[in-house]
Order: sequence, then structure tokens, then C-alpha cells
Amino acid sequence: MTTTATTLKGQPLDRQTLDAMLRRRLFFTPAFEIYGGVAGLFDYGPPGCSLQANIVDLWRKHFILEEDMLEIDTTVLTPHEVLKTSGHVDKFADWMCKDPKNGDILRADHFVEDVLESRLKGDKEARGEKVEEEDDPKKKKKRKTKTEAVKLDDALVQEYEEILARIDNYNGEELGELIKKYDLKNPATGVQPSPPVAFNLMFQTSIGPSSNLPGYLRPETAQGQFLNFAKLLDFNMQQMPFASASIGRSYRNEISPRAGLLRVREFLMAEIEHFVDPEGGKKHHRFPEIDAIELTLLDRHTQLAGKTDVKKMTIGDAVRNKVVDNETLGYFLARIHLFLQKIGVDMTKVRFRQHMENEMAHYATDCWDAELLTSSGWIECVGCADRSAYDLSVHAKKTGAPLVVRERLDEPRVFEEWQVEIDRKKFGPQFKKDGKTVEAALEATNQEQREKLAKQLAENGELELEVAGVGNGTVKVSKDLVKVEFRKRVENTREYTPNVIEPSFGIGRIMYSLIEHVYWNRATEDGGDEARGVLSFPPTVAPTKVLIVPLSANKQFQPFVSKISQKLRKIGISARVDSSSATIGKRYSRNDELGTPLGVTIDFQTVQDSTITLRDRDSTKQVRADEDTIVAAIQSLVTGAREWKDVATELPAFEGQEVDVAVR
Amino acid sequence: MTTTATTLKGQPLDRQTLDAMLRRRLFFTPAFEIYGGVAGLFDYGPPGCSLQANIVDLWRKHFILEEDMLEIDTTVLTPHEVLKTSGHVDKFADWMCKDPKNGDILRADHFVEDVLESRLKGDKEARGEKVEEEDDPKKKKKRKTKTEAVKLDDALVQEYEEILARIDNYNGEELGELIKKYDLKNPATGVQPSPPVAFNLMFQTSIGPSSNLPGYLRPETAQGQFLNFAKLLDFNMQQMPFASASIGRSYRNEISPRAGLLRVREFLMAEIEHFVDPEGGKKHHRFPEIDAIELTLLDRHTQLAGKTDVKKMTIGDAVRNKVVDNETLGYFLARIHLFLQKIGVDMTKVRFRQHMENEMAHYATDCWDAELLTSSGWIECVGCADRSAYDLSVHAKKTGAPLVVRERLDEPRVFEEWQVEIDRKKFGPQFKKDGKTVEAALEATNQEQREKLAKQLAENGELELEVAGVGNGTVKVSKDLVKVEFRKRVENTREYTPNVIEPSFGIGRIMYSLIEHVYWNRATEDGGDEARGVLSFPPTVAPTKVLIVPLSANKQFQPFVSKISQKLRKIGISARVDSSSATIGKRYSRNDELGTPLGVTIDFQTVQDSTITLRDRDSTKQVRADEDTIVAAIQSLVTGAREWKDVATELPAFEGQEVDVAVR
Repeated sequence: MTTTATTLKGQPLDRQTLDAMLRRRLFFTPAFEIYGGVAGLFDYGPPGCSLQANIVDLWRKHFILEEDMLEIDTTVLTPHEVLKTSGHVDKFADWMCKDPKNGDILRADHFVEDVLESRLKGDKEARGEKVEEEDDPKKKKKRKTKTEAVKLDDALVQEYEEILARIDNYNGEELGELIKKYDLKNPATGVQPSPPVAFNLMFQTSIGPSSNLPGYLRPETAQGQFLNFAKLLDFNMQQMPFASASIGRSYRNEISPRAGLLRVREFLMAEIEHFVDPEGGKKHHRFPEIDAIELTLLDRHTQLAGKTDVKKMTIGDAVRNKVVDNETLGYFLARIHLFLQKIGVDMTKVRFRQHMENEMAHYATDCWDAELLTSSGWIECVGCADRSAYDLSVHAKKTGAPLVVRERLDEPRVFEEWQVEIDRKKFGPQFKKDGKTVEAALEATNQEQREKLAKQLAENGELELEVAGVGNGTVKVSKDLVKVEFRKRVENTREYTPNVIEPSFGIGRIMYSLIEHVYWNRATEDGGDEARGVLSFPPTVAPTKVLIVPLSANKQFQPFVSKISQKLRKIGISARVDSSSATIGKRYSRNDELGTPLGVTIDFQTVQDSTITLRDRDSTKQVRADEDTIVAAIQSLVTGAREWKDVATELPAFEGQEVDVAVR
Repeated sequence: MTTTATTLKGQPLDRQTLDAMLRRRLFFTPAFEIYGGVAGLFDYGPPGCSLQANIVDLWRKHFILEEDMLEIDTTVLTPHEVLKTSGHVDKFADWMCKDPKNGDILRADHFVEDVLESRLKGDKEARGEKVEEEDDPKKKKKRKTKTEAVKLDDALVQEYEEILARIDNYNGEELGELIKKYDLKNPATGVQPSPPVAFNLMFQTSIGPSSNLPGYLRPETAQGQFLNFAKLLDFNMQQMPFASASIGRSYRNEISPRAGLLRVREFLMAEIEHFVDPEGGKKHHRFPEIDAIELTLLDRHTQLAGKTDVKKMTIGDAVRNKVVDNETLGYFLARIHLFLQKIGVDMTKVRFRQHMENEMAHYATDCWDAELLTSSGWIECVGCADRSAYDLSVHAKKTGAPLVVRERLDEPRVFEEWQVEIDRKKFGPQFKKDGKTVEAALEATNQEQREKLAKQLAENGELELEVAGVGNGTVKVSKDLVKVEFRKRVENTREYTPNVIEPSFGIGRIMYSLIEHVYWNRATEDGGDEARGVLSFPPTVAPTKVLIVPLSANKQFQPFVSKISQKLRKIGISARVDSSSATIGKRYSRNDELGTPLGVTIDFQTVQDSTITLRDRDSTKQVRADEDTIVAAIQSLVTGAREWKDVATELPAFEGQEVDVAVR
């Protein structure tokens, strides 16, 4: 597949070369590969595992520590009832079709999209037009359908295009109608697949020995946070607003995962549930701090008009102009933007896209995705949804647990109103089986009606009320059974169900997109022959910070190698020694592919004067100084306190050729 | 249940009070509690989550960074075939019985144990003997059986005791026989349960939409590491020995979990797989560093003799005396000991117990558990098993993947030997269907036989060989079909399957045991009335390091509170502000329960001279100094560089009563 994706240096990005490099360096690898592998399951090797840990660590500092969020760790196993209540059992599904000939399972929307796109492409070819891949968020997978150059009617082309623009909006029945109407066939067999059926994406299991407690692997960490809401509010000493956060694995039994790390069945999520008072416009007290940050936005209206033109706008303006609904949602969009910037994402390849009405999850009232541009198009990496009071309300209703905030009012609220007071002891014997109905009818009266009833009682000693289904429909109640009086009522507390703003991060997708953003090719850049890949991670996220290389296997170097490794380990900086027999250049190349930002060389001069060299991965420039100076420079670079250009200005450059040094 | 468990200060440990405190402070909480909860599933609230993260962080530094282990992150979802090969599908099971009356599911060994122990206890009571609970590793659960005082025959008492001593050794059939023979009845119904059946402890699920790929949630992280062995060896540039490590969740569908955090269905494990050459006695190059460390050992022989007397011994002596099999196993036992010490475990409540032959997992050839003494008895918290070449061998055999090390020999090995060389072109046509059999018989000959065969060929031009099932059992092979000659063979490489030493940590169990070890009661200690719990975590593992309390809600204090929080956050020290209206004493008490080691107070003197006070949780002593001095002291305490007594000597003590200060 050709794409318009580019590397950090603007070179065309060759996905296959990059993937081969990532596997060779064990960033990730298909899980159970010696058993043939399982689609959608990947293992992270040491560099991938370390990169993931560093991103999670920065996430924890950027969000949890910075904002005093309450981090909790909840179980993946979740009983059926919880996910039934949350709506996932009924609605967390994709539509799938089966090919009756070879048994292929197809995701219905992808299948329709595939075939129609292929026909449109064939039409363009037949018309002699140029055919290009687009950066469209919908085209995240490799095309399965082989294109045939067949010209279509102009009207049909327009129909196809309209269908494709709305592909996320069709339900199973509608997708089935499209398949029949346009006679869509599985290219693998030439046969039309069966009508779509819903396939729930949750992995099911059974908890306990008697198989009577069905459960699922959670599809998101959010539910565990909602269920603990009352305890967390207590822990937070009843203070609102507050946020909980969880970092953990979630599971989705994808119908046909096929985009590497971008669509997997088991993945790490980091989710925040920010609980906020729905009244007062969802203000955020730290909004002024991020007001001026400029974001790239693609709103719902633009998309409805069939366009993808982004707008650049400060988040302050976006909220004031109601492009983004409220301050809290806007605050988190800006904080997400800052986080992506911090870990080294190319900010020219980021946009925030608002979900269309029909595209949103069943619980959301508004949602913006941070999308990152990759060789597979625009990828949703962070979702930021307003889940309103949906989840807390449904769980409270189901369980009776009070998932609410009780706020003491500074000023008690006083109501003066007509109140109905029923003498239940007399009421029952009088009305017998109709008692409840009559009582309910009385309680249901409004202020105006009550005023009239009070008048009747005062004047006639009884009131007359229409109660459907009791006697002839009119009931008389005497004043010894009921009082209707104008009284004062004082409320000292206010009770409400908080709304939830949820920033939700797919760590694997962020990680993979970041890798594409920092990848480039040294050889092409230098005009060399061989493709030499470099991953220019910022030092803060790089899997290993320092490569230590002795010039050769000469035993004189060993004590220096040990000393510098120990010093770095002591200050918590991850370093790796490469004393293999490969040339220094080869060893550095290997570590460029691993994204190691710094390199230290021990050579013959080290033995003489204890100085060592420090190399910058991106520029390949080196400086030379004594060990302590170099260690201090490393520390400042790794913590992000300084950049290479600062170090290069302060310390003497080293131009010596290692080969010469080795010879003398 | 009364126990002999004690707190850090030797007070009797009241498990119920402690558990109530831990839930009140949200260390952990039953998962899905508003839905009635699910046995064996717990969520960690903010302090539990943070404590877990700190323990894992220290683990990573102590093991992975210190020894350059290769950390990987593999999937929980595991296809059936992998766990069939590893033996878990067939052998990872417990025996369970069903009560035919009420449907109760009972774990067979626990049931037999329960009933027999109850009868023995009843016998003691009937004999008027004192009945005491013991610190026995087998009695980890609450007894379900109500004891009746019935005297038993002396012979029967002895039979029961012998059965209990061997309870881990019975299989399902034998447990069934015991139930019948002694007429054991479920105390809840008075009915004898059904014969035991095997219940596999893995959670089962189905991967993908077509339900044709059954899978499990992994019962250990180890398999993911074994399957990646060849790639990891490559990544390590073919260097041996090396270790991989994984930190992640594993799952066991326990039949009846009932010991809080000690027996749960979803848990965090940290596992190391150290790959070592089986030849050369499994030496470890860093063994001298830990040679002199003294461990508390309970070996297999002592247990076989029915005793629990531990031996104190340096690990060096233990290995030299063959109590512990080899240096690598010994090295890790000592490293485990040091880790437990580092996180604050009470080392007088630690022992290393060797598994009995019948007790070991199906893959192990030797195993030592680090057991921690708690109110539930001795709890296995770390297992250290020698899994030999078991796993790599079975996976290699099943998949054909070369899970071996190919070692270049420094000195090529030269063999001079009789070799058989068969001319296959002629061999086939001559022997037809018997060709393979005759060939195999020739290849199977030993050196002595070959020497004779060579002689026959030289003398008779043919050799005579007995081959069962071919012709009359004797086959003649002429010299144009086969040569048997004395030749030299040179081997430049050696190929072997590494053995695996596996230290495996149950983080939740360690965490809970640690909590019991550092728990004590201030009031009892001080002679006060009210029980005031304290958790004396070392600062390095404490969930929150510093509590910041302004003396009152006075607005003058706010800037100082903000300043000190920001300073601490900047150097990565977790702090929490408590500006609630509770008294300073109440606020400190709350944080003693959370295990917060340090407290900073902002009072009126702060406003005057910018000094603040620092309080030590354990002694409740305070010092006073300017902000920067206090921050530096906090940093040295939190990193473990200094202890409170150092700080208390250097900085002026503060004796002022906050109440007086508030008044003036």
C-alpha cells in the first residue's frame, strides 16, 4: 500500500521497512508466534516494554500527580450484571457477516466499504483518472478487494460516495440491504455473504466453579471507577470536583484485527473520570492556565458538510464560541495536547475531531478524539467524552446505591408552598383498596390545584378530586383525613448526580503513532546507500537513555565501563553496555534503531586522562569531558532540563576518529 | 478466630480492626460491592494502588535494573494449545465436591481437613485439654465446621493426624475414599458430599468471532516469557546466562476464595525466568556478594520428619552443604531476602520453606517458598522454583522451534570414533520397505558393536546384524552399501536447552503481609483508650510521603501550603494537603492510618519567619527549620539516604503546642 505518510525528516515512510526494524529490535512481536500466532495479540519486547513504561510514567506525572487525581486499580473480570446495566451487553457490538462458501467472517461495515471503494477505484481507472490513497480516518486497514477497471454510471458513483460518507451510520439491517441491493460479493470467493448479525465485542467467561456467574473481561476501565464513586467521594472528604484515574488492560474481541498495534484484542488504557457538578456550566478553575493554547479542531458541522478542513483556534476561543461545549471538556483537550507534545508527538500530525451524533458510544453526549496521522491514516488515540450522568444514574437505579453528591448549602433554600398532609391511619380504612390510588392523586396535584383544594376544605369541610378508576371518577375526602396548608420548607442540602468528563488514552496506539512520528532514515538523509533507521524519541521517553561502548575488547577499558554503568544506575538512568566485536559505527547504528539518545565511548584516551565522549543520536556530534561532567550532562538531558545544543555549546567538541585512536 | 499474630510492637493483632481500618482508608475494597460483590475480586483504592506501585517500582530497581534483566510485557489471553503443551490444561486443577442437598461447592482437601481438624478439636475438648490455634501453613482459612466435644479412640486420633500431615499428597480418588471411610459430612447440611472431581483453575474464553479458538486467561506470566526465549536470546546477542522478567496480572478461578487479599482470582505477579546452562553446576558469578547472608530455612527433610524447626544458615553454607541445590537458586533466595527487607517486611516473620516432592507444581524439580507469618499463618508470598528444561523442551517438541542455545566452543571438541556411513541410494532399492528399520538398527549400534561390524566388513565383505521384525531377524549388509570406519569428528558448537530458575512474586500477598508487619496500635502503646492504628511503612514504599496541614482555615496559610506542595511535586515527592476543619491531631491520626511517614505544619510562626515543622509518624517528634532545609530533609528521608534519627539530631526539635500557637 502506498501512502502519503512521511518520516520526521519528510522522507516517504516505508511501513514495511519500519515494521521489520521494530520486530528486529523486539519493540513488539506477534504473541505465540511459534504456535502460529493469534490475530490481534502482540507481546512487547524490552524496548517496547520500556517505552510503554516511560509513556505511562509521564502520563501519571502529567495528569495524576499534577492534578491530585485518585488513582485506583480495579479488576478486569466483571460480572454480567454490571455490564448489562452499563449497556455494554446490549450495545457494545459490531455487525458481522459470514461467507457461506469458505466460512470467512467479515465485519459488515468494513466489507461494504471495501467493495464499494474498490468499485469506485476501478471506475476511476476505467476513466483514466489518477488513483490515490487518501488520509481518511475510515481507511485504516489494508484493502482486501482486488480492483477491476470497470466504468460505472455517474449516478451510481454518486450513490456509492454518499454511502461511504455515511458508513458509520448504518445498522445491521441497513448494511444487509446494501449488500443485497448492490450485490456485494466476498472477493475471496465471489459469493454474497449472509445477512449481518450483531457480534458482542466482549470476551466472555465464567467466574467460580459452578458456572452460574457469567462475566466478561472489561471493555474499558471506566466501570470500575464508577462503581467506586461513593467511596472515592468519601476518600476525597466529600470535595467536588475530583477525578479518579486507572491504568490497566482492557479487552475487545475484534472481528478481524489486521492493523498491527492499531487494532488489537488486549490493550493498555489510561482513563480519567472527572466528576463535575452539572450546574454552573462545568467551569474549570485552572482553565485560565491553558486558555491561550492553540488546538487544531475538526468540528461536527464541518464534517456534516462533507469536509475535513481543520480550524486552528485557542481553546479559550473554542469554548467561548461554543465550538467546544464547556471549560472542563476544553481544559482536558488542552491538557491532552500538552501531553502529546511532551512525549514527542509531531504536533503537525495531530487534530481533534468531534464525533458525529450517530458515531458516539451509547453513553456519550459529546466526544472529541485526538487523532494522530500515521501511514494508516488518522488514528483515534485519545477520546475525550462527556458521559453526562449516564453511568452513575443507571448503576444507582439498578442497585439502589446513592451515587450522588450531597452538598451543604451555604444559604439554606427556603420554599413557601401548599403542602398536602394525609392522615394515613384513617385513610386506609376509609378507601380500602383504592387508598393508594387516591393518595397518589392527591400527591400529584400542583400548587394551583392545592390552593383550590384548601379553599374547598375550608368552605365545605371536604374536597373533591378526580381520580380515574375509583368509583365514578370523583372522590370526596373530608378534612379529618387530609390537610392542605400553605407552609414553609427549608432545604439545607442539595443532592445531585455528577456529570463525567472522560479522557481515555489508548497507550498502544499512542506508542505506535509516536514511533512513526519520530522515525527517519539516516542514509537517505546523508545520501548513503543503506537505509539506516533512527528513532528520535525525546530522552524522557526513550527506552534506554545511554549506550556505553568500549572501543574494543581490550581489558583496559573494562573498569571504566563498570564505573560509568554503576554511576548511571545509581542516579536511576537506564544504560546498556555493548562490548560486542562489531565496529563502533555498527554498534551506534543498532542503538539509533532502538532510539537510544546518548552514547558514551571509552577509548585509549580514557585510559590516559579519564575523559569520555558523549554522542548525540540525532546529530551524531560528540563532546568530550571528564566522567563527572559527562554524567551531569547526561542527567540534565535525560530529565529534559537541557537540550543537546546547550551541552554542545558548553563542552568541547570531539572530532577524533575512533579508528585512528584505536591504531595509535 | 484468635491467633498468635502480633503487631510491629508485639501487641496482639486484631485482624478485624485492621481490616476495618484498611477498608475505611480505601487500601482495598471488595470489587462490585454495590452489586453484592464477587468472591476473590478486590479493587485497590488510592493508598493501595500507590503502595502497590511503590513495591513494584522497588522490585523493578532491585531485580530488573540491578541485573540488566530483559523486561517484556506479554498477553494475558493465551490459546488452548500453549497451555495444553505446558501441562496446565491437564494438571492445573483442584479437586472439588458438591453437596447434593444445597449445591455447596467444596474444595475437597480443605473439606477433609476442616472436618478432621474439627473432630480432633472436639476430642481435645472432651479430654479437657487446652485447644489452641497453630501457626500452620495449612490452616489459612476460617474454619467452617462447628466443633462438638466428642472423645475419639486413641488409634483414630493418630489416623486423623497422619492424614492431616499428608493432606497435600492425596489425589481426588484418595480424598473420595477418606470422605467415605470416615463418613465426612458437610456441616452446613449434615450430608456427605459427592466424590471429588477435578476442576481446572483457568478461566476459559473464546478468541475471535467464530468460537473456534478456545483460550484461557494465563495462570502465570512465565509461558509468555518461554515462548519468546529465542527472540530474547537474540536480543541479548546470544549471551548466556540471562534473565527475562514480567510484571502483570494472572488469573486463577479459585473454588472458594475466602482469605481476603491472600487468595484471590485476579492478581498481580512479578516473575523472573533466569536461563542458565545446566552444565557446570549452575554457578552464579555474583554469588560471592551474597554468600554471607543468613537465611531462615525449613528444608524438606525436617518437614518429612513432621517438624517445623527452622535452621539459620548463611546461603553460602546452605549451598556448600547441599541444603540448597545450587548457586543460582541460592543467589535468588538471598536476593529475595534482601528485597523483602528493603520494603519493610519484619524479617523475624520470614522463612524459606522447601516444597515436598509431591507438593511441587508439575514443571518443578525443586522449589523454595519465601513464607511470611501473618494472622492467617505462614503465607507463601514468593516461590523460587527450578523448572529445569521442562517448559522450553515441551514447547520446542510441540512446535519444532529451536528453543536452544548454540554455544561456540573456544576449543573445538574432537571425537575419534567408529562412524557408520550408509549409501542411501543403494540401500533403499535393496531393502525396500525394511530400509528405514535396518538403517535405524545400524545407527543405533554402539562403539563396541561398530568395531566388530567393521571387522566383519573387512574380513567378509559384509556384516551381519540382528534386526527384529525383518526377515528371520538377521540381516546381511554388503560393503558397497555401508562403511564402518574409525574417524575424527570435530564439534565447534555445543547445543543445549537452558534450565530455568524462576523467582515468582505474588505482589498482593506481599503487600497484605507487609501491612500486617508494619501495623501497630498507638493508643495501647501510649496507654490511651482509643485504638489508633499506625502503619509504619518505610518512606520508600509509603503510599503518600508527606501530609501538609495548615493549622487552620486562616487564609494567611494558603500561600505557604501552595509553595511547599509545588516544591515537593517538582522533586517528585507525593504529598497531600489536608485543610479540613478537623484538629491537627485528628488529621495526623488519619494519616498515621494511611502510613504517611512525614507531616509538615504551617502555623502562625510560618507566617512570621517562614519556618515550618516536620513531624515523624513513628515517634510523633517534630523539628522546625526553614522551608528549604525541611524539603532537603524530606528528600533524604524519602530516598532512604537518611533516617529520622539523623534528621532529629541535626535540626532543632519543636515542642510547641499547636493549640497555644493558634491562640496567641
